[in-house]
Amino acid sequence: MSCESLIRASLTRIDAREREVGAWAYVDRDAALARARALDSGDQTGLRSGLLHGLAVGVKDIIDTADMPTEYGSPIYAGNRPRQDAACVQRLKAAGAIILGKTVTTEFAFVQPGGTRNPHDLACTPGGSSSGSAAAVADGMVPVALATQTGGSTIRPAAFCGIFGYKPTFDRFPGAGMKPLAPSLDTIGVIAATVDDIARVSAVLAGESPAAVHVPDHPGFALCRTPYAAQAEPQTLERLAMVARTLEDAGGHVRELELPAPFSELNDLHRVIMAHETARAMAHEWRTARQRLSPSMASFIERGLSVSAEAVAAARAHVEACMRALPALLGKGELILTLSAAGEAPVGLASTGNAVFSRLWTLLGLACFALPAGRGMRGLPLGVQLVGGPEALLFAAASWSARRLHEATLGERA
Amino acid sequence: MSCESLIRASLTRIDAREREVGAWAYVDRDAALARARALDSGDQTGLRSGLLHGLAVGVKDIIDTADMPTEYGSPIYAGNRPRQDAACVQRLKAAGAIILGKTVTTEFAFVQPGGTRNPHDLACTPGGSSSGSAAAVADGMVPVALATQTGGSTIRPAAFCGIFGYKPTFDRFPGAGMKPLAPSLDTIGVIAATVDDIARVSAVLAGESPAAVHVPDHPGFALCRTPYAAQAEPQTLERLAMVARTLEDAGGHVRELELPAPFSELNDLHRVIMAHETARAMAHEWRTARQRLSPSMASFIERGLSVSAEAVAAARAHVEACMRALPALLGKGELILTLSAAGEAPVGLASTGNAVFSRLWTLLGLACFALPAGRGMRGLPLGVQLVGGPEALLFAAASWSARRLHEATLGERA
Repeated sequence: MSCESLIRASLTRIDAREREVGAWAYVDRDAALARARALDSGDQTGLRSGLLHGLAVGVKDIIDTADMPTEYGSPIYAGNRPRQDAACVQRLKAAGAIILGKTVTTEFAFVQPGGTRNPHDLACTPGGSSSGSAAAVADGMVPVALATQTGGSTIRPAAFCGIFGYKPTFDRFPGAGMKPLAPSLDTIGVIAATVDDIARVSAVLAGESPAAVHVPDHPGFALCRTPYAAQAEPQTLERLAMVARTLEDAGGHVRELELPAPFSELNDLHRVIMAHETARAMAHEWRTARQRLSPSMASFIERGLSVSAEAVAAARAHVEACMRALPALLGKGELILTLSAAGEAPVGLASTGNAVFSRLWTLLGLACFALPAGRGMRGLPLGVQLVGGPEALLFAAASWSARRLHEATLGERA
Repeated sequence: MSCESLIRASLTRIDAREREVGAWAYVDRDAALARARALDSGDQTGLRSGLLHGLAVGVKDIIDTADMPTEYGSPIYAGNRPRQDAACVQRLKAAGAIILGKTVTTEFAFVQPGGTRNPHDLACTPGGSSSGSAAAVADGMVPVALATQTGGSTIRPAAFCGIFGYKPTFDRFPGAGMKPLAPSLDTIGVIAATVDDIARVSAVLAGESPAAVHVPDHPGFALCRTPYAAQAEPQTLERLAMVARTLEDAGGHVRELELPAPFSELNDLHRVIMAHETARAMAHEWRTARQRLSPSMASFIERGLSVSAEAVAAARAHVEACMRALPALLGKGELILTLSAAGEAPVGLASTGNAVFSRLWTLLGLACFALPAGRGMRGLPLGVQLVGGPEALLFAAASWSARRLHEATLGERA
């Protein structure tokens, strides 16, 4: 198929569904079609590789683009047009990808929703903060979208929308040009309809050669319900157990992992560190446009301003101790198998849901991979999450697991 | 004195000297005077504290300002006007500081000079990359200027210009709005004519209450010539020894510290990590405006693109091992006393000098403080550097040492 026909297919789907789904902050039809035609006619201008030749990509509107508006989900930045592309956008372009537009983000990638609906049920949130990226991919508008995660902003919307989501090991992808929210946590991620697309796009974003995925015969999984299991719906825990049995039946090694007591503080410490960093990063908006921030953002900044340097230092020391303790808790080649969200996407658009099943992993800097795992009682997607690294191992295990779940009719969007 | 008269004094000095020194990329006379008059008339708009009431500050032109151009020392960004102030600029404003203008940076805070001259000898470099900040403070144009350091970009120009320079512990000040060069190293710093001004401005930038500086009676110093002493001028090593004797005579405890062998690799590893990160951060400029980058920047990016992920990982692991080894090498409350540069400012404007005496400390994330220490054989400033933390200890030792050096007629600009 030609690049132009693929872009036209994306645009047709957007035309049909965007009014209901609301996944896009901006779509540049003409530029995307022009680029597609140029690629079809052999134009190699600016290409470093053709690894993503003609791939249509949505870019979360928290990531700067020089040729499209970038509004960060906030009226403060209406009409904002950055001078430069984010580094990850440039890497996509240089590999032949076509940036179709900007996907809706919550306000500054925090919690205030941007109006996007879950394509599986328009009455439900798609999750956030990467709301538009998850909804656009889940609805078939684009195969791939860039996301970000500071708490659970890639994994949770991927889970709620029944697609794959990947948050890399901290700092694996260049972050230049992503609007800072909490810089020690902010991580650019990828949402896609297939594990392969995530692996391909990730190689480009990391500046690495795409490695053949080596899938082990008997991957190892440490089944972990986290210290926050009480916040999960019963069906979610049951689905996690069913997934574990499915992977075990397929040859995986699964054993239980209970995190030591200090890990149970990580969710609270995430809030301390993030609030502190957000208050710092948002100094300009706080001082010049406070009345145009959402109440949730304003109160989070106020909380951050009241956090003492000692509290931040103690929190970081606690996190580092957990980081040091973690390797001894995992066997060689073992990944954590855990929840990706508390349950199905909640009804309503006022909240993007609970991030508690992602914050601890983000805080530890670990790579995370959301896998769809069938439907829940309300007919909406459920999912699980693999956590750990290195990336080659994670992608191999994700690929192996996705195939096994699909065979067990758990991994397919019905 | 009124704020207005202080600003007028700054502007008068700039009028008299700027044509020769070339410290400024932009000066906003009218806005600075208007803000000074407003402060004089009791206007508290936007103030969080009056800690820096009326203080004139220059801001390195690698740091974003919404009300002044920000050109990053590159023709690629001619006329660039960011949408927002950097977080540190907002913090200065909220404490009552008056941003007088933008100081000259080398191209993207790397090595290509911006034409600034050393106020002590116009034929010599002021150092870089914070060339304008150091020259403006040394020439009496402003008492304080923001700088940045990725290798030696705050400490070296402070040394060459005979003033005080401070590079905080990594990430102590919010970095949002600083143009990324190598994000794991980029650090906003402060250049000033007095230790007290650095302490005061630092408290504001860190969001902490200004603490009374507790000066110990017998501060401890680990005299360290670094593994790179062979690159220093003999007079610089002699001056370092003289400073050590002076501090010892004044009651300080001084002992020799030779860094273990692994530390001698840190300069080379700094180049590996920085080249890798710079190639990532500069993706937009590399892809869209390569011909407008200096040859030195272009070749550094090419080097960075050729660095393997394995080499970066190995470098980071080596650095972390050195970080872990360091505390055991230092006594309680002890700081490293070392060179701040290879010698006096070199003649000529084509290079900003050798950063080898700063890169290792930047790579270790340590706080650094440059102290003037008299003049060299060509009549230009020489200096020394204190390294380590925590910040309260560093400031106390810097204050104590500066006083002792001044009494010994080593610390004064003649």
